[in-house]
Amino acid sequence: MNQTEKPYVIGLDLGGTNSVFGIVDAEANVIAEVSVKTRGHNDNAQQYVDDCVVELRKIIDQVGGIEKIRAMGIGAPNGNYYNGCIEFAPNLAWAHEIVPLAKMFSDALGIPAALTNDANAAAIGEMTYGAAKGMKNFIMITLGTGVGSGIVVNGQMVYGSDGMAGELGHVIVERDGRECGCGRKGCLETYCSATGIARTAREILQKTNRPTVLRDTPIDEVDGLAITLAARKGDPVALEIFEYTGTILGRACADFATFNSPEAFIFFGGLSKAGDLIMDPIRRAYDENVLKIYRGKAKMLLSQLDDAKAAVLGASALGWELAMHNA
Amino acid sequence: MNQTEKPYVIGLDLGGTNSVFGIVDAEANVIAEVSVKTRGHNDNAQQYVDDCVVELRKIIDQVGGIEKIRAMGIGAPNGNYYNGCIEFAPNLAWAHEIVPLAKMFSDALGIPAALTNDANAAAIGEMTYGAAKGMKNFIMITLGTGVGSGIVVNGQMVYGSDGMAGELGHVIVERDGRECGCGRKGCLETYCSATGIARTAREILQKTNRPTVLRDTPIDEVDGLAITLAARKGDPVALEIFEYTGTILGRACADFATFNSPEAFIFFGGLSKAGDLIMDPIRRAYDENVLKIYRGKAKMLLSQLDDAKAAVLGASALGWELAMHNA
Repeated sequence: MNQTEKPYVIGLDLGGTNSVFGIVDAEANVIAEVSVKTRGHNDNAQQYVDDCVVELRKIIDQVGGIEKIRAMGIGAPNGNYYNGCIEFAPNLAWAHEIVPLAKMFSDALGIPAALTNDANAAAIGEMTYGAAKGMKNFIMITLGTGVGSGIVVNGQMVYGSDGMAGELGHVIVERDGRECGCGRKGCLETYCSATGIARTAREILQKTNRPTVLRDTPIDEVDGLAITLAARKGDPVALEIFEYTGTILGRACADFATFNSPEAFIFFGGLSKAGDLIMDPIRRAYDENVLKIYRGKAKMLLSQLDDAKAAVLGASALGWELAMHNA
Repeated sequence: MNQTEKPYVIGLDLGGTNSVFGIVDAEANVIAEVSVKTRGHNDNAQQYVDDCVVELRKIIDQVGGIEKIRAMGIGAPNGNYYNGCIEFAPNLAWAHEIVPLAKMFSDALGIPAALTNDANAAAIGEMTYGAAKGMKNFIMITLGTGVGSGIVVNGQMVYGSDGMAGELGHVIVERDGRECGCGRKGCLETYCSATGIARTAREILQKTNRPTVLRDTPIDEVDGLAITLAARKGDPVALEIFEYTGTILGRACADFATFNSPEAFIFFGGLSKAGDLIMDPIRRAYDENVLKIYRGKAKMLLSQLDDAKAAVLGASALGWELAMHNA
């Protein structure tokens, strides 16, 4: 057994639908990958871990056994870095309470494991392999079903007093605005997530008679992709939806800059695929609204990580952090 | 010369009116103090430093000479920690451009010097001597002529990519709201600073006929103290002004919590003297607005530093940081 030769870590991207495990080397190559359904497992957390480990062992064997694996990193919704638990994840039936998932995988595999929320994992991944290489102060914004964030200060993730810091998607941008899944109103994510932009489209389609190609799609199927395709064809309503969404996000980022004066904002996830359609209004609203002393300083960047692998890479980067720490 | 016996640092609280220098020991005792007018000095930064040093030498001699002094810390408006400069301070005639004040004092005195903005100095002081002792993640809010902030993450000040991070007083809390000195509209400080609360009072006095003892004071002289005294007598308008001000501040803090999930918010400065009159609505609005995962976690505290000495102690704490670092 020679643990120093070609070591690996395991990254787990724990999503609402799939749990994707990757075995990753120090150069960010995903050597082997396996996917397990996140739901099921009798809604029991231990069963989930056991079922995952059965599949995981197969790819571990492919790379030469558990001796080659230094650590495991997990990116998961409502993940608490400090205690390695998933805490009250509304969309995970086996994690409605507190589940010590890092410890459970660590015990099952006999390697150290760490866990954080998915947006933090994305930020660590970007810092380790992507657009934030070498940056000490930046803010990662993930535009998925919700809006997540990972904040880096002095080269360190901001976990806060309880391990749950960095929920910029729940900054209230419109007092008494749209209802949010968190039980409050007007959160950033009700406007700027994939579901938020679809909601904006539905509002315009229902409240106006303005002609738009978006009417060719059943209203419940108008999503970020449909709006992006329409906007690329110059559809004025679709363009306005991006303008509206990007303006809210750019203004919010201008407020966020007062916190850690970041070197960059890095955008990741579904909506960021729209490229300049969303980035142009973000940049414009940011420049118009940011405090003078910060003007022209922060870059507005797209993630540089391959989309399909970004979440696994982010989780694996957390694994490498842990491996270094334990070395 | 024995530098290890009873060492001191110099703290400078550089205010718009007075520059207060204190010689401080490791137990936060201000051994000697001297004050110099900040204005004048032919509007020349070098002249300001030279004039200050003449006065400063007198108290340095009192404590046994410069050999006893390890370092100097400066808390100043628009202070940049990274380069030790005051940058474009609108209210300092000799600092409308970039003034390398830390280096200038360091050169004149022959000791290391560091500089940061006044709210950051207050946060360092609170962490070293006050309510934040032992805390690793907290937010200091200073309620003076403006609203300042000092943010601590993982036990470190947040200076950001450019040394100018932590300007939460310029988060926009009301889109197209009150005009702010920064050139934008609706900043937190236009509502929750000493000038902000006076503005709220004037608006109510001018726009309504509601009876209040505040009408006994000339309208331009209604300030935080007058409103506090009226509220303590149960004046309903004065109470409503505090409710309004505290609600805006509490809601803003609920948003700030998403950033670093602080162990505490610590309030300092003029308006915080109103005690429960301001703290009760802050706490109420915070609890009503904060994201569920943070609820009940952050303490809302008043500064524990003696008001007259807090700014000098804060600056001296920065001096101690530097002295430790150079030791």
